[in-house]
Amino acid sequence: MRYELYYWPTIQGRGEFIRLALEEGGADYLDVARLPERERGGVPALMQALEGRRARGQRPFAPPVLKAGTRLVAQTANILLFLGPRLRLVPKADSMRLWAHQLQLTIADLVGEVHDVHHPIGSSLYYEQQKREAKRRAEDFTAHRLPKFLSYFEQVINENPRSDHVTVGSALSYVDLSVFQVVSGLRYAFPRTMKRLERRIPRVVRLHDRVIQRPRIAAYLASPRRIPFSTEGIFRYYPELDTAVTR
Amino acid sequence: MRYELYYWPTIQGRGEFIRLALEEGGADYLDVARLPERERGGVPALMQALEGRRARGQRPFAPPVLKAGTRLVAQTANILLFLGPRLRLVPKADSMRLWAHQLQLTIADLVGEVHDVHHPIGSSLYYEQQKREAKRRAEDFTAHRLPKFLSYFEQVINENPRSDHVTVGSALSYVDLSVFQVVSGLRYAFPRTMKRLERRIPRVVRLHDRVIQRPRIAAYLASPRRIPFSTEGIFRYYPELDTAVTR
Repeated sequence: MRYELYYWPTIQGRGEFIRLALEEGGADYLDVARLPERERGGVPALMQALEGRRARGQRPFAPPVLKAGTRLVAQTANILLFLGPRLRLVPKADSMRLWAHQLQLTIADLVGEVHDVHHPIGSSLYYEQQKREAKRRAEDFTAHRLPKFLSYFEQVINENPRSDHVTVGSALSYVDLSVFQVVSGLRYAFPRTMKRLERRIPRVVRLHDRVIQRPRIAAYLASPRRIPFSTEGIFRYYPELDTAVTR
Repeated sequence: MRYELYYWPTIQGRGEFIRLALEEGGADYLDVARLPERERGGVPALMQALEGRRARGQRPFAPPVLKAGTRLVAQTANILLFLGPRLRLVPKADSMRLWAHQLQLTIADLVGEVHDVHHPIGSSLYYEQQKREAKRRAEDFTAHRLPKFLSYFEQVINENPRSDHVTVGSALSYVDLSVFQVVSGLRYAFPRTMKRLERRIPRVVRLHDRVIQRPRIAAYLASPRRIPFSTEGIFRYYPELDTAVTR
C-alpha cells in the first residue's frame, strides 16, 4: 500500500504528526503537495483532495488528508487512529487503542491552543493585526495551560502500568511520536518558558530524547523531508510571546 | 450495562453531546455529578473520576468522562466513537465509523471555536476581562469561520450517497444529534447571525427539525434532565457578540 499524504508543502503544521508516524512505521508514502506541479503535486493537488472528488461523499473539511487506496481520511487524530494498527504504532487491544486516541485528542487540544496563542482573534488576520491580544493570551497559556498539559503527560508516563518510558503500553506508539513533536515545537516557540518548565517533566523530556534517537526518526530529521520550524507554522517563535511566566 | 457520565452538573457544555447520544440510544445511565452529594454525586464525584483512581493508569485530562464497567473513557468525540456501535447510533462498516468520527472531530473544532469567541484570551479569566477581544473575535467568527463550518455540513448532507437527510449512512447517527445540538446552541448564542445564515443551509436546518421530533429526544428536551442554555456554558448569548456580519 502506497499512502498519499495531502498537506501544506511548506510547513510542518498538523501534517507533521502524520509524517512522523509514516516515517517511523517505514511506510511507503508520497507527500503529494511537496512534489512539483508538473508531477501532479503542489498546492493544486492538495486543493483537489479537499474537493473530495475521489471521496464518495466523504469530503474533508481541512488538511491533513490521507489517501489509502480508495479511502480518504481526514482529521489528524483520526488519521492516526486509522494508521496506528497498520503501521504497528499502537497496541493491539481495543481498549488500548481507544486510550491512545484519547491522548492524541488531548495533544490536538494543546496544539490548537498553541496555534491560538499567535492567532487569538482569527486565522483570517495576520499575527501583526492581533499582536497585543497574542501577548495577553501567551501570558495565560504559559502560566496556566501549558504547565497543565505538560504535567498531565508527565503523569501519564509515570502512571503507565506497562512501562516507565512511553505513554501507552510497553512499546513506542504514535502518541509518543506526537509528544516528541510537541516538545520540539514548544522548544522552538517558547525556549525560555520551556527551559523553566522542563525541570518538572523529566519523563516527557526523556521520551523526547528517546524518540529522536530512533534510527528512522533520526534519518528523517536529517533529511530534506523534514521541513524546518518557521513563523508560518503552528509552533512560531515570537520572542515577545515567550513570556516564561511560571506559577 | 449502566453507564456513568461524569460532567459539570450545571451546564450543557461538551457533556451534552454524550447526553443526547445516551438518551436517543435508550441507554441506562447515571449523570453522576447531577446526583446529590449524599448519593455520592455532585462535583466531588466528578473530581474523583478525573483523578483516575479507577482508571488503571488511564487518567482523563478533562470532563466529560464516561464510565462503562471498569473502563473510563474521555474526550467527547472518543466517547462517541466508543458509544456509537453500542447504542446503534453509527453504521456497522468500519469505514463509515471512521467517517462519522471524522465529522464529529470537525464538530469538536467548531465547538472549540465557539468557546473561544467569548474566551479569546484564556479560560482562567472572566468574559468581562476579555470583552473587547471577544468582540473582535466574534466578528471574525461570524463572518468567516461559522459560515464555512455550516456550509460544510450542508455539503456533507447533500453529498451523502445513502440519504438526503442525515450526515452519515442511511439512518440517524450520533453525528446528527451533535449537528442538532450545534444548531440549537448557535441559535441561542447568535440569534441574529443564525437568522441570516440559516437561509443558506436548508438541509442542516431540516436535520435539526427532524432530530427534535424524535420521541426520545423530544421527551428528554421536555424533561428536567435537559439543562437550559446559559452564559456559563459553551454557547453563550452576549448580544454584543452576535454581530450578524455575513459575506
